[in-house]
Amino acid sequence: MHKIALIGAGRIGRIHAANVAAHPDLQLAYVVDPIADAAKSAAASFGAKTADLDGALGDASVDGVIVASSTDTHLDFSLRAAQAGKAIFCEKPIDLDLARAEDAASKFEGARLFLAFNRRFDPNFRALKKKLDAGAVGKLETLHITSHDPSPPPAGYIPISGGLFKDMAIHDFDMARWILGEEPSEVFAAGACLIDPEIGRLGDIDTAKTILRTPSGKLCVISNSRRSGYGYDQRIEAFGSEGALRAGNVVESTVEAWTESGAQADQFQNFFLDRYATAYHLEMAHFADIMARGAMAQIGYSDGVGALKLATAAQQSLKSGAPVSL
Amino acid sequence: MHKIALIGAGRIGRIHAANVAAHPDLQLAYVVDPIADAAKSAAASFGAKTADLDGALGDASVDGVIVASSTDTHLDFSLRAAQAGKAIFCEKPIDLDLARAEDAASKFEGARLFLAFNRRFDPNFRALKKKLDAGAVGKLETLHITSHDPSPPPAGYIPISGGLFKDMAIHDFDMARWILGEEPSEVFAAGACLIDPEIGRLGDIDTAKTILRTPSGKLCVISNSRRSGYGYDQRIEAFGSEGALRAGNVVESTVEAWTESGAQADQFQNFFLDRYATAYHLEMAHFADIMARGAMAQIGYSDGVGALKLATAAQQSLKSGAPVSL
Amino acid sequence: MHKIALIGAGRIGRIHAANVAAHPDLQLAYVVDPIADAAKSAAASFGAKTADLDGALGDASVDGVIVASSTDTHLDFSLRAAQAGKAIFCEKPIDLDLARAEDAASKFEGARLFLAFNRRFDPNFRALKKKLDAGAVGKLETLHITSHDPSPPPAGYIPISGGLFKDMAIHDFDMARWILGEEPSEVFAAGACLIDPEIGRLGDIDTAKTILRTPSGKLCVISNSRRSGYGYDQRIEAFGSEGALRAGNVVESTVEAWTESGAQADQFQNFFLDRYATAYHLEMAHFADIMARGAMAQIGYSDGVGALKLATAAQQSLKSGAPVSL
Amino acid sequence: MHKIALIGAGRIGRIHAANVAAHPDLQLAYVVDPIADAAKSAAASFGAKTADLDGALGDASVDGVIVASSTDTHLDFSLRAAQAGKAIFCEKPIDLDLARAEDAASKFEGARLFLAFNRRFDPNFRALKKKLDAGAVGKLETLHITSHDPSPPPAGYIPISGGLFKDMAIHDFDMARWILGEEPSEVFAAGACLIDPEIGRLGDIDTAKTILRTPSGKLCVISNSRRSGYGYDQRIEAFGSEGALRAGNVVESTVEAWTESGAQADQFQNFFLDRYATAYHLEMAHFADIMARGAMAQIGYSDGVGALKLATAAQQSLKSGAPVSL
Repeated sequence: MHKIALIGAGRIGRIHAANVAAHPDLQLAYVVDPIADAAKSAAASFGAKTADLDGALGDASVDGVIVASSTDTHLDFSLRAAQAGKAIFCEKPIDLDLARAEDAASKFEGARLFLAFNRRFDPNFRALKKKLDAGAVGKLETLHITSHDPSPPPAGYIPISGGLFKDMAIHDFDMARWILGEEPSEVFAAGACLIDPEIGRLGDIDTAKTILRTPSGKLCVISNSRRSGYGYDQRIEAFGSEGALRAGNVVESTVEAWTESGAQADQFQNFFLDRYATAYHLEMAHFADIMARGAMAQIGYSDGVGALKLATAAQQSLKSGAPVSL
Repeated sequence: MHKIALIGAGRIGRIHAANVAAHPDLQLAYVVDPIADAAKSAAASFGAKTADLDGALGDASVDGVIVASSTDTHLDFSLRAAQAGKAIFCEKPIDLDLARAEDAASKFEGARLFLAFNRRFDPNFRALKKKLDAGAVGKLETLHITSHDPSPPPAGYIPISGGLFKDMAIHDFDMARWILGEEPSEVFAAGACLIDPEIGRLGDIDTAKTILRTPSGKLCVISNSRRSGYGYDQRIEAFGSEGALRAGNVVESTVEAWTESGAQADQFQNFFLDRYATAYHLEMAHFADIMARGAMAQIGYSDGVGALKLATAAQQSLKSGAPVSL
Repeated sequence: MHKIALIGAGRIGRIHAANVAAHPDLQLAYVVDPIADAAKSAAASFGAKTADLDGALGDASVDGVIVASSTDTHLDFSLRAAQAGKAIFCEKPIDLDLARAEDAASKFEGARLFLAFNRRFDPNFRALKKKLDAGAVGKLETLHITSHDPSPPPAGYIPISGGLFKDMAIHDFDMARWILGEEPSEVFAAGACLIDPEIGRLGDIDTAKTILRTPSGKLCVISNSRRSGYGYDQRIEAFGSEGALRAGNVVESTVEAWTESGAQADQFQNFFLDRYATAYHLEMAHFADIMARGAMAQIGYSDGVGALKLATAAQQSLKSGAPVSL
Repeated sequence: MHKIALIGAGRIGRIHAANVAAHPDLQLAYVVDPIADAAKSAAASFGAKTADLDGALGDASVDGVIVASSTDTHLDFSLRAAQAGKAIFCEKPIDLDLARAEDAASKFEGARLFLAFNRRFDPNFRALKKKLDAGAVGKLETLHITSHDPSPPPAGYIPISGGLFKDMAIHDFDMARWILGEEPSEVFAAGACLIDPEIGRLGDIDTAKTILRTPSGKLCVISNSRRSGYGYDQRIEAFGSEGALRAGNVVESTVEAWTESGAQADQFQNFFLDRYATAYHLEMAHFADIMARGAMAQIGYSDGVGALKLATAAQQSLKSGAPVSL
């Protein structure tokens, strides 16, 4: 039984807490959150105690720390946990500042840090990756990632979000790196503010199409939208030398209604916590494996830096209007 | 170039006339119809002359006769054409009276009669049959045929229709015989009048589920409805020892609309003349082959009798409430 | 926290035990099984004790009993639990003998018995039922249930199974009753032994098509096969006056492979414990509601008898070759 | 009855000849081709005469001219036909040289020239456009066009093809202009030679991802591949403010084979003459309308120039590695 401290009792923190509680080998010991009520409520729900960071990290019986606090604290809290010798489950992104993230890299050498890009644990994307790696469609040539959110975040979140590329597309940059199997060497991003003018006034975009190129010539297109108009759109198409693989959206049920208008499928799973419920569950199981069996983290610090590097390059490309070489 | 006489210039007759006109080796020579205006109009549209039956059959240059007149004349007109040595393209059903049809069988010996069950020429059902015959799913065990019309015929047609089994399900009995590859030996039919009470008052049903059994134990279920509520439903599922084959409905286009409600496909092809346009075209090509190359009719007189036998048995089963052995 | 005693530590018993363990308000207290090793192993896995039936029922702190033992004990053990005042979660079927089940009915008056027909809790079938009840396709007219198992049970199970209708189709009879919203008044069953001759030698069938008719004229077709050749096929089509609803099979993932042969979808969820994992989970949540909030069991003793009545009638029909009226 | 002269009796010329022959108001009068055998064969098949260009254009009874000769002659032959007062059906592209095409524009003022971009007549893409224009998904924001060929052309064709953008993507640039409803103002193209190194040696690419931006901020991604590995991939996704529309690939039949591996759909229509058979048919009907009823050509000279402008800009972007403004 591994004891876990959770830092950050917000929406995603509570999801992780529930998955800790449901895992036979994990036990939630502490909840740390500056908002006392949030900490108390989460602690009560999952049978844990509240504590401050020092208290939680100072308990030698705590083996793992989940960093689910606000983005600007990910790096510091992860570092604190690393220094305390804990295994770390850190939410994405590792940081919003590439230089800072790169500078800190050496401090994580030897640390058991798992950077939790949840989509790598989605059963659909995993099935796609597995078939691709098994050669089902020959050699990968190009990749299309569609990642459209149901609706934009509140305007108040935009200034602290890091912008569309670091906040939202960061997931897709990670997926691209994972599936391409190669570090992209060029990024071109075209963006627009088509959905909410307020987002534009705050200096951000809400719509983007990004092209990545790898040294071997593979091309990847990422489509991002802050508001789809039709729900949560999370799809991947991988084009290989002998065919293509597609992972589609997940529907609420298999029920179709047939009327004079044709066949109407049930709606897509539209809330990310539903869509990726299994992924969150599986990433916690992986964290347990890291602690119990010394499993190598499937996503590490360098992956966090790699995705951030692409997001940063996309921002530069958007600003300059030209491709950026890496 | 084979000259053709068309008997019956109604809706289906005009479809056949158009396919004759479009075929490079066929030429419409005569249109025969007691309704002079109908005959004239069709003749004018497709560059033919009007004639009476004797006139058309008496022209030695006429090689083929299309019998698309009312059901009660199919047998007589086909016989007249056979006696005149013409190749015959006869609409289904061969007749509404089984005894009469069986009695006449000997008179068609040697005749080039093609009984035009159009669904055997549908590319989807043909593809299913071809894969089945190629062993794609092993040995056929059971078969489901769904055949629901968009809307019921006018009540005035019911009394002369021969009833649901001889008028509508006759197509499905033919499909069953074709795909099962065996003559069914038992029929059980359950029927109801759920759609239009007027149909019930006229002594007919509008909804039926029929089970056929073959000597080797294969089972076939046919589902019929005079009004689907969602368009023209024409599907087949064939269950074999190593898998299943399904032929689905045909959509107007591949376009889907994605909204918050889910994915909405385009409507089914709902009018039988659209849904089976290719089938009508291909059956005329087959008729041309019969005349030009002496091809054996893919569907002959005995098939007409076979389907009628099943329809008659279904009527008996419905009446008696018990299965009927053949 | 409600304490639960599990009777029967076989495959399905362990599934229920896991769902008890995962439920925040339930706790597995006892495992009862004549096979000591099975009882011990399940008890150890889920933190319970082993006991004999008297011991488990005699503990006043036990609030609920799960009857997951062999079919011939369902009725007796449920009765024992009822007499002890426990809430009962009983696996299907309630019994194999209709007369016995009907005779015992009065003894369950007032008992909190939940007959666990899992398919009613499947999210897909629930979504279909919900849309149907909401009038999405008008008034229900006919119903098609397809229920094909991946592969037949071992021959040794056939003699104690109660036969295809009571063992396998019992689920479908329950679904039919639930969705039709009316008690069927006529049953006609056609069966065959097409898959495994050994099943035939043991006096059973492995393939069946059954037609149910209700007093209002609704018709229902059930298709059963002990071996599909293509996995676990669990589908429903409900035809209404204004459209149709379909619940399809569930796939392992949304991944499609596109090759020169066309689009290949991922395989169906083929193991019933996978296919109905959510249903098992939800039926345990319902059992918790019965205990915690006095919720009325969604499926009761009379539903067990109703399904058994249809299965018994189907057996009679198969034997006599004629429809059976109820 | 409008008499037609066909210039160019190659593969696509014969398709147009067959559609002329099948149209009730059109008659093929002349076939012009420097390869005498090709001209003779086509003329014989469709009941026409062979002629040289002067002979065909000099016949005052000829109303329409189909220009289906090699690309470098499209502009000259169309001009000759225009000067002769004929209606013109010209194959795409109008020319490979943008300056030349722009210079010639004034000479076509008043000419009845129909530039035959066949995809605009595809029933699927037309249905998408129609729904989009009807507001089915709100205001268009972004557009994805996937256009992958089954296999690359012979290497010998590459040098005269004009390159991937002018030869192949020209169709997609036309579709983009048509659907976006706005003239793109920026083009960025990323290309690679991933399929056939010989194509690279000849200075061309075989894979491209292109981003178009319009003045209002709409973004369009075009994906091109000379070899898909899975057949002919012709899809469009249009993302609007209230949903998305998708036009998918067309399958050979609706038949699916279900096996333990899952559901296998029938193959895509893989040959462009099959995939676009209806489109070719409908564009000929449109040409007939232009002649018979003075219909305005749905696609005119300026559309040919507009698509060529985008293709030329894409080539420049590929060469410079930077976006090109228009």
